[in-house]
Amino acid sequence: MELSAILEDSCVRDWETVDPAAVEPVRFAVIGLGWFTKGRALPALGRSERCEPSVLVSSSTAKAERVAADTAGASHGITYDEFHDGVARDAYDAVYIVTPNALHLEYVETAAAFGKDVLCEKPMERDSERAAQLRDVAADAGVELMVAYRMHTEPAVRRARELVAAGYVGEPMSVTGDMSQRLLDRIDPNPDQWRLDEELAGGGALFDIGIYPLNTARYLLDADPLAVTGNTSSTHDAFDEVDETVAFSVEFPEEVYGQCYASHNARQSSGITVTGTEGQVRVEPAFFQDQARQLHVSRGDGRASVTVEKVDQMLEEFDYFADRVRGDADLYPDGDHGLVDMRAMEAVYEAAATDRWIPLD
Amino acid sequence: MELSAILEDSCVRDWETVDPAAVEPVRFAVIGLGWFTKGRALPALGRSERCEPSVLVSSSTAKAERVAADTAGASHGITYDEFHDGVARDAYDAVYIVTPNALHLEYVETAAAFGKDVLCEKPMERDSERAAQLRDVAADAGVELMVAYRMHTEPAVRRARELVAAGYVGEPMSVTGDMSQRLLDRIDPNPDQWRLDEELAGGGALFDIGIYPLNTARYLLDADPLAVTGNTSSTHDAFDEVDETVAFSVEFPEEVYGQCYASHNARQSSGITVTGTEGQVRVEPAFFQDQARQLHVSRGDGRASVTVEKVDQMLEEFDYFADRVRGDADLYPDGDHGLVDMRAMEAVYEAAATDRWIPLD
Repeated sequence: MELSAILEDSCVRDWETVDPAAVEPVRFAVIGLGWFTKGRALPALGRSERCEPSVLVSSSTAKAERVAADTAGASHGITYDEFHDGVARDAYDAVYIVTPNALHLEYVETAAAFGKDVLCEKPMERDSERAAQLRDVAADAGVELMVAYRMHTEPAVRRARELVAAGYVGEPMSVTGDMSQRLLDRIDPNPDQWRLDEELAGGGALFDIGIYPLNTARYLLDADPLAVTGNTSSTHDAFDEVDETVAFSVEFPEEVYGQCYASHNARQSSGITVTGTEGQVRVEPAFFQDQARQLHVSRGDGRASVTVEKVDQMLEEFDYFADRVRGDADLYPDGDHGLVDMRAMEAVYEAAATDRWIPLD
Repeated sequence: MELSAILEDSCVRDWETVDPAAVEPVRFAVIGLGWFTKGRALPALGRSERCEPSVLVSSSTAKAERVAADTAGASHGITYDEFHDGVARDAYDAVYIVTPNALHLEYVETAAAFGKDVLCEKPMERDSERAAQLRDVAADAGVELMVAYRMHTEPAVRRARELVAAGYVGEPMSVTGDMSQRLLDRIDPNPDQWRLDEELAGGGALFDIGIYPLNTARYLLDADPLAVTGNTSSTHDAFDEVDETVAFSVEFPEEVYGQCYASHNARQSSGITVTGTEGQVRVEPAFFQDQARQLHVSRGDGRASVTVEKVDQMLEEFDYFADRVRGDADLYPDGDHGLVDMRAMEAVYEAAATDRWIPLD
């Protein structure tokens, strides 16, 4: 593995299998029009030559049509009920689900019934039982299901993964990761905010941001957890239902140990580090979208920090999904992949409640 | 807390209470003449204006006298037996114990019987029971006992601690630390190497290097562990008695979570990071002696990395001890302080054996 190759072509879309000019764009029904959709997803879909945001789905016709009017390529603005009723079903090929976690399953059920492929935001659902149902519904209908882990197509993370796979760090021994932000400084402290509602979210900091270091650790190591433990805490009243902060440990195969931290109360920070017998690879900042990535590597006596161009992570993710929908290559972050995180995160909560390590099957 | 003050006087000896010109130097009996003593401790004692390496103690008269002949200020080279017999006891005021862990107690017993102050390498002993005896022996004799935590007088760590205490990071929320090196690449893989011998060492990577992130976390937070868990592993045959690698988690008061890693098999790395509600302070590299420290701070939108001049850590430590021996100020890393680490480390081993969190009293 030559670092020079990374420097020269750090953002290569090595996952591409289909020439976008040779296929029709994937037309999306976008379900849920919150700030993330409007600020991140729709602009990316607008820039994509592989995707189109054809149908926008929200709680009211007025809102859906208003957003559709502002979105190039959007031909329909419909309600959630209309979506379930099959309105405009010929106008989209796939659905992108960005609703509260506990509503994912019902939209996947409808999409699967209509034969539509699914890109579903993470975490998959509010608990692993519903996540398993979600996976099964898609599989039974024979539609593609991808869980929206944008780190899998973040160039800095892909390059780090290639370095690890090529033996740059020797045998991996440990991985540490963290993601924190002051959520209450960023959002309206509205008690209806679904992320703070255990029924709708399923979990707090762990489900919302702890999933980044957890899943990215799995992705970088190409390995799944054997056992976990952890602690959760909450300081502010807004987090009376879900964890504001989580610290958790993950045992991976081959005695590789992971240590992760996520907090909605700590200063913004994000990073992930793999240390091996021979070297170290770190991506920092790692997980927030509005920062250029830095890839820090060390081996032998040398150290280097490579600034990786800031890509539109949502564009990369949508285009990867469209490539897989239009081509024959397998999706990496499928339902089985997402379910591993769901079970690991539930086990962290069980561990926090029992002061134990919880083995995973 | 102004960063500019740190930049201007990063290595200030703010712990000094006694003018060295006003007192006699502290004359040491140095017990154990291994590579660390010869390469690190004796050169530092030679440079100190507060200390003198008067008596050198080793397994044979020949070796002790040979090293004494090469050491300015050394007037005696004697054997361990001769030390216990009181040979040259008028030629030293204090002892510095740098033998295998399991031998610390016997030298403290003799030093205490002679009324000599004690600087004892960490970890205090091979187990907490003997460490408690060691503490009690010194206390009963009324001699000073300091455990040799050189991070307590490392300027970068002291400055980081001041920043944390002054609220620079807001409320501390997490601390992460690691220390690794490839021990078998550095030492003769001699099966008699005491660090690999459970009877002599008491523990492996945790006792030898994991104690750095553990103790420095305590020092930076000014807090002691409430509970710990962890895992240990060994890859090489040389580590069939003690852990080659340890990953451990520490719960501190106020729901501050610590995550630490230490390995004698991973690539050299060392660092410690405190993240709070408002900012972050990191020292990296942190624990190895032959590197200039970097103090990385962030708060608000700003980030800065300050290179702190490389000091002779052993000189700082010896001079601090001498200052406390000659003056009236209290020693910070005393026997009670060291015993907390011993009990926490034993609890990590118990946790690793039982897959539990182990509470500490």
